[in-house]
Amino acid sequence: MQSEQTLSLLCDFYELTMGRGYYGSGLGGRVAVFDVFYRRNPDDGGYAIAAGLEQIAEYIRGLRFSESDIDYLRGKGIFDEDFLTMLSTFRFTGDVTAVPEGTVVFPGEPILTVRAPVVEAQLLETYLLLQINHQSLIATKASRIVRAADGRPVSEFGSRRAHGESAAVLGARAAYIGGCAGTACALSDKLYGVPAGGTMAHSWVQLFGDEYEAFAAYCRMYPDAPTLLVDTYNVLGSGVPNAIRAVKDVLWPMGKRKCAIRLDSGDITYLTRKARRMLDDAGLTECGIVVSNSLDERIIAEILRQGAVVDAFGVGERLITSASSPVFGAVYKLAATVEDGVSVPKIKVSENAAKITNPGEKALYRLYSEEGKAEADFITLADETFDWNEPLELFDPEYTWKRKTLTGYTARRMHVPVFRGGECVYEFPPLSAVREYCRRELDSMWSEVLRFENPHNYYVDLSVKLWDLKQKMIRAYRG
Amino acid sequence: MQSEQTLSLLCDFYELTMGRGYYGSGLGGRVAVFDVFYRRNPDDGGYAIAAGLEQIAEYIRGLRFSESDIDYLRGKGIFDEDFLTMLSTFRFTGDVTAVPEGTVVFPGEPILTVRAPVVEAQLLETYLLLQINHQSLIATKASRIVRAADGRPVSEFGSRRAHGESAAVLGARAAYIGGCAGTACALSDKLYGVPAGGTMAHSWVQLFGDEYEAFAAYCRMYPDAPTLLVDTYNVLGSGVPNAIRAVKDVLWPMGKRKCAIRLDSGDITYLTRKARRMLDDAGLTECGIVVSNSLDERIIAEILRQGAVVDAFGVGERLITSASSPVFGAVYKLAATVEDGVSVPKIKVSENAAKITNPGEKALYRLYSEEGKAEADFITLADETFDWNEPLELFDPEYTWKRKTLTGYTARRMHVPVFRGGECVYEFPPLSAVREYCRRELDSMWSEVLRFENPHNYYVDLSVKLWDLKQKMIRAYRG
Repeated sequence: MQSEQTLSLLCDFYELTMGRGYYGSGLGGRVAVFDVFYRRNPDDGGYAIAAGLEQIAEYIRGLRFSESDIDYLRGKGIFDEDFLTMLSTFRFTGDVTAVPEGTVVFPGEPILTVRAPVVEAQLLETYLLLQINHQSLIATKASRIVRAADGRPVSEFGSRRAHGESAAVLGARAAYIGGCAGTACALSDKLYGVPAGGTMAHSWVQLFGDEYEAFAAYCRMYPDAPTLLVDTYNVLGSGVPNAIRAVKDVLWPMGKRKCAIRLDSGDITYLTRKARRMLDDAGLTECGIVVSNSLDERIIAEILRQGAVVDAFGVGERLITSASSPVFGAVYKLAATVEDGVSVPKIKVSENAAKITNPGEKALYRLYSEEGKAEADFITLADETFDWNEPLELFDPEYTWKRKTLTGYTARRMHVPVFRGGECVYEFPPLSAVREYCRRELDSMWSEVLRFENPHNYYVDLSVKLWDLKQKMIRAYRG
Repeated sequence: MQSEQTLSLLCDFYELTMGRGYYGSGLGGRVAVFDVFYRRNPDDGGYAIAAGLEQIAEYIRGLRFSESDIDYLRGKGIFDEDFLTMLSTFRFTGDVTAVPEGTVVFPGEPILTVRAPVVEAQLLETYLLLQINHQSLIATKASRIVRAADGRPVSEFGSRRAHGESAAVLGARAAYIGGCAGTACALSDKLYGVPAGGTMAHSWVQLFGDEYEAFAAYCRMYPDAPTLLVDTYNVLGSGVPNAIRAVKDVLWPMGKRKCAIRLDSGDITYLTRKARRMLDDAGLTECGIVVSNSLDERIIAEILRQGAVVDAFGVGERLITSASSPVFGAVYKLAATVEDGVSVPKIKVSENAAKITNPGEKALYRLYSEEGKAEADFITLADETFDWNEPLELFDPEYTWKRKTLTGYTARRMHVPVFRGGECVYEFPPLSAVREYCRRELDSMWSEVLRFENPHNYYVDLSVKLWDLKQKMIRAYRG
């Protein structure tokens, strides 16, 4: 969202102190391998949707330090000129692999991996995490809300409650990947092709003073499927009757029948049922009912269960902030370094078991049943080879006596190359294709994984070799 | 955060459809008055901190529609050339008043008011709300967290979990206004002067392999008050002992004593107490203890109550997303229009009582006791005059029998002029002065208003004239 020079300093200050430290210790060129993974699904759900890769690629391609960046750093008084000179000609030269945007992902598995000289790899940390955390959070929330809406289109309406400019614009992008039909944000349409729409605020009705006149004026101006906001004064007492009059007076004589009313407050179940009857009785059977007002997947599921009559939803603050679960906790952890051409696995142990990392350079596979349903994910060391025609025994990495043997499965390697030797080698599909891919991804999951309450814990298992390595390294540090 | 042409479309699409509608109906030039207010304090707290005004002023000053913006709109097929031509030469010509950044504010009161031709005023809606909602949210959360830390400095560490680029950079700015001592975000330091700091990640320790060597190398490189991260492998078993050795081996011979350890996981109370004893026993009495790991005001208050020994806090995801309360719900509502030179009050009634607006052009006062403590806020019609030397009877706008008479008070008008006739007339103070003003604002509040649990409901009362007008207008629409 900004000129490339300036965003390069969108990093945590420790990346710069460490960078100078590595550089000054002669370790700056040592190749390091970092994995991005997350620990818990938002909303205690069964899955997440990965998003943000395209912005990450743009960032890496444009990563330069401008003269004013260097001046800023020099002013800190702790960075030597050698390091600053290196930064002033900085280019990313490493490799990045990742799951494509729109992929269904699970806790603990690498969703992006960087392999680069440590000074370079370290500098990417904050921006990579920020994009993945933000867009994956919103794509996941959108996916949940769209599934709750059960086929009714959901529009993203939340720009005004987003956490700043890029939260609005890229949030709308992520919501579209997750299945939203469109957005209210014009800029997200212009920049990313997320279809933008919108009709009127309460101020339109107030400005005209007379509600009927406000609706009639709008219908004259936009006769193709206008949406009239009926809750400025009194939904059933004036809003719906005035909308009916305006549609009959203005649209019908033009031969146009398609339109909608929108409700943004009050008891949605009661009001939509009453309004539907009033519209039908007046012959406005082609007038849809759009509902907004602090919705999320739980409220949508509940009002539909209660029998609310809704044709489309507008979802604002609780989608654009993922209000019930606003943190996507992806982390960026060192998995290996390359010393004299040999990959040396690294681990972080710590006190919290959940914070122990999977060491080494790895590969991620998804194993599908013959019906094409995802049965498990399988993390291996990168140099392991398997005969995928053989039965595969999987075991729970924590409760290792829980075992399962897969036969007749197919294995899909989940990461695609994104950067190779500093060059972007991935061709980003159009956003509508990402959205369609995400829909297919969800189709490949058992419904037990997707449900909102007590979802099935999808298997993310380790190969025997990786499991053994991890245990050995934990014992070495804690034994 | 972006070039001015592009951000102009960071608006809800309905602002454009309404804009063309007003313009095409000959109403585009009618002056409208919009108020920004919010309805509930974050975290069920007793107050909020207003922030974001400087970015709003920048946005308004730079609001232009570029050729590519116009082309995008033309492509939608619903905007006529007259309207597009008007947009292509768009300049804001109206007035804006607002409370200064860092002001303590309360639900229901106007914190910003726009008075401009309706086409202009309507176009500002989304961006104004987005900035106020985001930065006020984070400033408020920071203020709560800093108060819980009870004098210990709090640094904002959350860029990686922020909702996108501007959420990180402006979030750090807002956290600083709210009282944070600094940030990890280098860009927020460069752009806004929020002091950035940071030392090492776990990867630093892992890369060296040997924990002692990692600490010693860091102390050699940065001998002035280095902070050593002690939880990569085993806090008390290796982290703290290795930190002690490195400090004694490297810093002490240089005559330097100031340093710190940082803990990012585990049982903070237990570990900090044990670590403090180990440091003191080794003579490292000038080694501070910095703590991070999913903190917020509740956890900080709780671990301090338990007796954790902490010198400074780093607060990440739960501050930068205001995780326990991630939505600041400010709205932008029409209060009046000016017709033939006369101000005509407007109201939105609706089904939800809380969504009923205060009609008319208004003024906001804060009434202070003789000790300089804020007693109540007082919303009046703009053209009312008062003799502030006379006793003032206040009444609860809902329970009107609740009455209170103030004497010996002083009245402060809360809004300052920001734009007059399209010109920015407000001189923005440096950010450190905003932070200091915010501290004084909090000092002027009774502790009952500031406490976390069951805070006192601060009085925001209406003048008799405003109250009468509101009741009359509600009855007219609902009666």
